[in-house]
Amino acid sequence: MEQFRNIGIIGRLGSTRVLDTIRRLKRFLVDRGLHVILDETIAEMLPGHGMQTSSRQLLGESCDLVIVVGGDGSLLGAARAMARHRIPVLGINRGSLGFLTDIRPDELEVKVAEVLDGQFTMERRFLLEALVRRQDEPIGEGDALNDVVLHPGKSTRMIEFELFIDGQFVCSQKADGLIISTPTGSTAYSLSAGGPIMHPKLDAIVVVPMYPHTLSSRPIVVDGSSELKIVVSSDMQIYPQVSCDGQNHFTCAPGDTVTVRKKSQKLNLIHPLDHNFYEICRTKLGWGSRLGGGA
Amino acid sequence: MEQFRNIGIIGRLGSTRVLDTIRRLKRFLVDRGLHVILDETIAEMLPGHGMQTSSRQLLGESCDLVIVVGGDGSLLGAARAMARHRIPVLGINRGSLGFLTDIRPDELEVKVAEVLDGQFTMERRFLLEALVRRQDEPIGEGDALNDVVLHPGKSTRMIEFELFIDGQFVCSQKADGLIISTPTGSTAYSLSAGGPIMHPKLDAIVVVPMYPHTLSSRPIVVDGSSELKIVVSSDMQIYPQVSCDGQNHFTCAPGDTVTVRKKSQKLNLIHPLDHNFYEICRTKLGWGSRLGGGA
Amino acid sequence: MEQFRNIGIIGRLGSTRVLDTIRRLKRFLVDRGLHVILDETIAEMLPGHGMQTSSRQLLGESCDLVIVVGGDGSLLGAARAMARHRIPVLGINRGSLGFLTDIRPDELEVKVAEVLDGQFTMERRFLLEALVRRQDEPIGEGDALNDVVLHPGKSTRMIEFELFIDGQFVCSQKADGLIISTPTGSTAYSLSAGGPIMHPKLDAIVVVPMYPHTLSSRPIVVDGSSELKIVVSSDMQIYPQVSCDGQNHFTCAPGDTVTVRKKSQKLNLIHPLDHNFYEICRTKLGWGSRLGGGA
Amino acid sequence: MEQFRNIGIIGRLGSTRVLDTIRRLKRFLVDRGLHVILDETIAEMLPGHGMQTSSRQLLGESCDLVIVVGGDGSLLGAARAMARHRIPVLGINRGSLGFLTDIRPDELEVKVAEVLDGQFTMERRFLLEALVRRQDEPIGEGDALNDVVLHPGKSTRMIEFELFIDGQFVCSQKADGLIISTPTGSTAYSLSAGGPIMHPKLDAIVVVPMYPHTLSSRPIVVDGSSELKIVVSSDMQIYPQVSCDGQNHFTCAPGDTVTVRKKSQKLNLIHPLDHNFYEICRTKLGWGSRLGGGA
Repeated sequence: MEQFRNIGIIGRLGSTRVLDTIRRLKRFLVDRGLHVILDETIAEMLPGHGMQTSSRQLLGESCDLVIVVGGDGSLLGAARAMARHRIPVLGINRGSLGFLTDIRPDELEVKVAEVLDGQFTMERRFLLEALVRRQDEPIGEGDALNDVVLHPGKSTRMIEFELFIDGQFVCSQKADGLIISTPTGSTAYSLSAGGPIMHPKLDAIVVVPMYPHTLSSRPIVVDGSSELKIVVSSDMQIYPQVSCDGQNHFTCAPGDTVTVRKKSQKLNLIHPLDHNFYEICRTKLGWGSRLGGGA
Repeated sequence: MEQFRNIGIIGRLGSTRVLDTIRRLKRFLVDRGLHVILDETIAEMLPGHGMQTSSRQLLGESCDLVIVVGGDGSLLGAARAMARHRIPVLGINRGSLGFLTDIRPDELEVKVAEVLDGQFTMERRFLLEALVRRQDEPIGEGDALNDVVLHPGKSTRMIEFELFIDGQFVCSQKADGLIISTPTGSTAYSLSAGGPIMHPKLDAIVVVPMYPHTLSSRPIVVDGSSELKIVVSSDMQIYPQVSCDGQNHFTCAPGDTVTVRKKSQKLNLIHPLDHNFYEICRTKLGWGSRLGGGA
Repeated sequence: MEQFRNIGIIGRLGSTRVLDTIRRLKRFLVDRGLHVILDETIAEMLPGHGMQTSSRQLLGESCDLVIVVGGDGSLLGAARAMARHRIPVLGINRGSLGFLTDIRPDELEVKVAEVLDGQFTMERRFLLEALVRRQDEPIGEGDALNDVVLHPGKSTRMIEFELFIDGQFVCSQKADGLIISTPTGSTAYSLSAGGPIMHPKLDAIVVVPMYPHTLSSRPIVVDGSSELKIVVSSDMQIYPQVSCDGQNHFTCAPGDTVTVRKKSQKLNLIHPLDHNFYEICRTKLGWGSRLGGGA
Repeated sequence: MEQFRNIGIIGRLGSTRVLDTIRRLKRFLVDRGLHVILDETIAEMLPGHGMQTSSRQLLGESCDLVIVVGGDGSLLGAARAMARHRIPVLGINRGSLGFLTDIRPDELEVKVAEVLDGQFTMERRFLLEALVRRQDEPIGEGDALNDVVLHPGKSTRMIEFELFIDGQFVCSQKADGLIISTPTGSTAYSLSAGGPIMHPKLDAIVVVPMYPHTLSSRPIVVDGSSELKIVVSSDMQIYPQVSCDGQNHFTCAPGDTVTVRKKSQKLNLIHPLDHNFYEICRTKLGWGSRLGGGA
């Protein structure tokens, strides 16, 4: 008996290639006698689809598996929604391979069939939750699979803040901002900013200063269970923004605190059996290949 | 009743300041009625000391606590020897604070008294063990508290090697070398080479490429239980060296493999209660201090 | 006979320390029988000053020397205004030394007297001029002594653009932005972003990518007479901002071009005879001092 | 009348591909009625070649043009020899494009014909000369087209030294070494070590610290006419090596000074007309291509 009977489909909007892949995926799933539910925003782009539709919120309650068609960015949004429901998520990339969406459109049927037949691995990726407080009152919160970023927003001035980890004062910084990243996010924005690559299985969080005024500042890797607290300087009129996965934003005021820690719910990310983290690194980061064939 | 009755003393050679501190330490311990055993190499520098002496090897068997006087480098050597015997180690710096030797000479009596009274914290720091194999036969091994470094040795040519982590091929590299560092070592050589700071409690290993030919190579942080394997290219006549903590060296030949993993024995490192990792970072790395007093 | 008879004074607003220094400076100059003209914005903060005042614009026409009291940021603004009039500029820092304002308040009388007596060096620092064009029509322009920065402005998305140097296509980039810096600016924002330090006498411009998507992107140093052109991608709805010295901003639209080149007018920056560029590097960047006194 | 009548050929040893290319090149030149002189070391690999041979030293005196077949490394050696004689040098790469050897074997006849017909550009690339002095007596000297590197040699200890530029003290450093690079060398070892790319036409030298103990150390770019002086610390028993282009080495002792400055003779490097520095950067550094075709 198949483990996954009710399959939700989420797709990146604004790409005909994504729509083509979704049509092909839908046909494949229906042919296997599975029940398909379309995310309602993508369903609007597929007139005459004849399928059940659902809000993203309810999709998590009705499905055993959600397949995301698009880039890594599309999966980030779905991941934050699905983590609450513990629904496994599988990603199909619209073109090249991604770190999270590691099935190519041309191998869709073979790879999805393997997953439906139980031939897959499941990774539990943790998310971060960020909470902004003003005079101890919560004023905003958000989840992130990749990263929580403090940045100047509309301002062009450097941000001044203090960083605390597990209650210990770490440093005062004057910088463009700060990136707090999961292992999942360590191959995204954090990497451009000088952070290390962290293997997805590592239970750790990295804190990466953005263009710090102090040249000896460096990325710091701490245990995944650590609580990080940023206190925005109350000395200056600075209103930085906090962004979660570069998608949700809220604005801070002088003196606000931003607390970031691991979320209890995890994303259950499904990979084909031949998934290999380092192979994706080599391909996407241009590391070249194995020795042997000459320089 | 005191936990520590037999106290071994190890000191860095070649410094009169260290000898002065050892004399003061010895007097303080004898006055408290404790049994002091001197490492025999430092004892030679202290004629008329009247104490029991011991080889470093036996020191681990006869003592309840070993105090190292010197810099962080001195503690590295003692740590590798003491880890086998699970003896707690305490460090007194000869001048400024170190990451491992965090008691200053001028506060010696106060801080050591606190430790002897049971007022201390104990950290378990892990070590790495490196094993070099030639055609599957072991030809050299070493332990490191900071780092295992593959470097060109006498050559000035780049090294070519393949890196595997937990049996998975990671990449081929043409580089000056490779640093494999513990959290303890992450504030030492690895940091100069672009590696992140890792909190001492983190169970992780960082792999830092040294001046890699591939500009997109980056430090990789993996779980502390990972096994790392370097295969020296057999295509070129390269004889790189492997160094443990920059102190023990052995030479590889083309085709050799170097396996690095966490050692089962840990170092029991003792700190005064007011020890604060981030404070040492701020002081030693020049991060400046807390906001408030103006730019 | 004195070279400088009419002395303009410009000051950073909002600091009582700056006002104190200006009062002291004014007294010193008047006592020497010199004619002092106050910038009108700072004059408002000094009721009863009894001096001639002038707009910043006219100050350049009436003076032989302009003295700026404040930080390096204050001097940037004055420099852009004075370069047009070729008036020499001297900087007095309000606290610690700056790269541009290298007289400390406590040595004001001694150092300014030396300068007035002809004991000084004069450096010609070049400025950049940036011109934004939309469909070949100029829509904005600005000058910079430090740097011209292309950045996302209010957006949080990466910017896509093409870079041309002297008419040659260099690369397409997806990045947070781009810094184009003079040698003067090379110790400011560009340095935080990974750019090299460039000696003030070097006739060169450095282009520093900000968190580029392509990990192998690197700062590029080109001859000071080069013309740089950025073409903002017309494929995406991106409205980045161009900032000159972080102080003047204008907004670009998709398809706009930003041309940056050396300005014909230079800043005549005056230093005391004991001015030493590397000494300021050592002090401000925390390079420590000369070998000798022990580790 | 042809500008180049007597053509020297230098080749990288140990590669059959290079020998094949040299045979093809020789045939092409002889067919055009030109006089070909083979470097004697490569001539030994070509039995029955029937050509005049010459030592590399004399080659510079007998030829109007020298063609180097091999990689950029081969051209470095030839360049140092030919700079003395002001002979133009042209490079043919044995496989992919190089920064200096920018003709591919498969386009040999077309491109070399263009050069012989006067269709080429000539760049004057400057070299560095390094002079080691012990107690004011010269004990070694060398030339470099790419870089002069101070490194630990057989030691594994950090080097301590002082750096002076144009007689001004810059800093004391404790580091793995120091790279002093020309614009030509800025895309070689210096780039791996964090130095900027410098356009070949720039008259500048970059100084790049190697894994400095002081985390705020940064590459410094100075005018090409600057004189750099390194003083090896006399406090420690350190015997570092100085390497020119990674090919010639000499050993320093404590207290030695190494002086590096621009050499008066330049390399006349010939390029085909379609040579484009930034295109080689894009290809060799993996910068991807122009915007347009989608992400």
